Amino acid sequence: MPPIRGYVFDAYGTLFDVHSVIDAGRAITSDPAALSALWRQKQLEYTWLRALMGRYEDFWAVTEAALRHSVRRLGLRADDGQLARLMEAYLSLPCFAEVPAALERLAGRPRAILSNGSPRMLAAAVTASGLERHLQHVLSVDAVKTYKPSPAVYALAPRALGIPAAELLFVSSNAWDVAGAKSFGYQVAWCNRTGAPAEELGAAPDLVITRLDELPA
Amino acid sequence: MPPIRGYVFDAYGTLFDVHSVIDAGRAITSDPAALSALWRQKQLEYTWLRALMGRYEDFWAVTEAALRHSVRRLGLRADDGQLARLMEAYLSLPCFAEVPAALERLAGRPRAILSNGSPRMLAAAVTASGLERHLQHVLSVDAVKTYKPSPAVYALAPRALGIPAAELLFVSSNAWDVAGAKSFGYQVAWCNRTGAPAEELGAAPDLVITRLDELPA
Repeated sequence: MPPIRGYVFDAYGTLFDVHSVIDAGRAITSDPAALSALWRQKQLEYTWLRALMGRYEDFWAVTEAALRHSVRRLGLRADDGQLARLMEAYLSLPCFAEVPAALERLAGRPRAILSNGSPRMLAAAVTASGLERHLQHVLSVDAVKTYKPSPAVYALAPRALGIPAAELLFVSSNAWDVAGAKSFGYQVAWCNRTGAPAEELGAAPDLVITRLDELPA
Repeated sequence: MPPIRGYVFDAYGTLFDVHSVIDAGRAITSDPAALSALWRQKQLEYTWLRALMGRYEDFWAVTEAALRHSVRRLGLRADDGQLARLMEAYLSLPCFAEVPAALERLAGRPRAILSNGSPRMLAAAVTASGLERHLQHVLSVDAVKTYKPSPAVYALAPRALGIPAAELLFVSSNAWDVAGAKSFGYQVAWCNRTGAPAEELGAAPDLVITRLDELPA
């Protein structure tokens, strides 16, 4: 493989723990883990469906739509204030514990986020976790108005960093994102935090780790 | 609304009962309904992801990949013969009980299938259910090598029937397919067989029914 000249990180599930919204869910359900899992599933589905339909709306709007659907599907009730507090949890997601030191270890080569998140959501999460000084680029799909795994999204990072995809290590906890990035041409590390089985999408990662501090520096 | 000059049906879940594969699943699991639900979920995800990645493989290959992933994720074991028998269930899916009479009632206007299924899978299911004489067109996404809800797919039926989408009634049990067809420009009926909540994709159906014999003739 060519040498690695920079790192590109997925945000949600990879740097930031989306299931930390479980705490906020306790206000409306006795099973907040089920709400969190369905909310995340529908959030991703809506990105894929809107991208295919050619009907982009930003990740904040998609995340809110996914929440409304999930609440109804689980037979829950939530007023506008409760929904707003659940949404706000997305602006202050904590990063996983090992992330700051793991990014620090990679200093000297550019490190970027490439995410479905809207610019406002990403800026808020990066600030809440104090990751600004470890990241040279925070890239949002909003620049191309579609979603992962569209090649138009993966093309953003090589362009911003001025480094070909084959010389970048793309890092994601989401197995389908791993397949998309690999298919595009990155070197890819799958951070399989949950021991999930691989997706059967015909594009295997170069490296499988369970925490970001296992990345090759 | 303009008058309806023809009918376009989704196949899987709308005419044909995909969860009839539950019977075939009993050979490898004590919870075949869970296998069937996950298999269907991954099957759809893989169509959306491959379409977005620009890595089309036909629905037979995608369905087989989704089955392999689902078996592993549920911690089941299945040999090649057992997997082959589960796949074969897709070639002889029964139609829902009301379908033949419901299609007969609409005779006089063209009736078509527009489906993710491969031509071979669709031909087998139509024959197994004896629906040939009720259908003038069986249209597969394979003609355009992508998947629903891409507009390229929905464009196939107006072209084949020679009737604008606005004068066709598109019928699907899949709420996301309903959103895709409505967004494209069809009149749309959602056959909500399971009492599911609507998807939040910004495109509501014109009509909601629970069985196909409720369609306006």
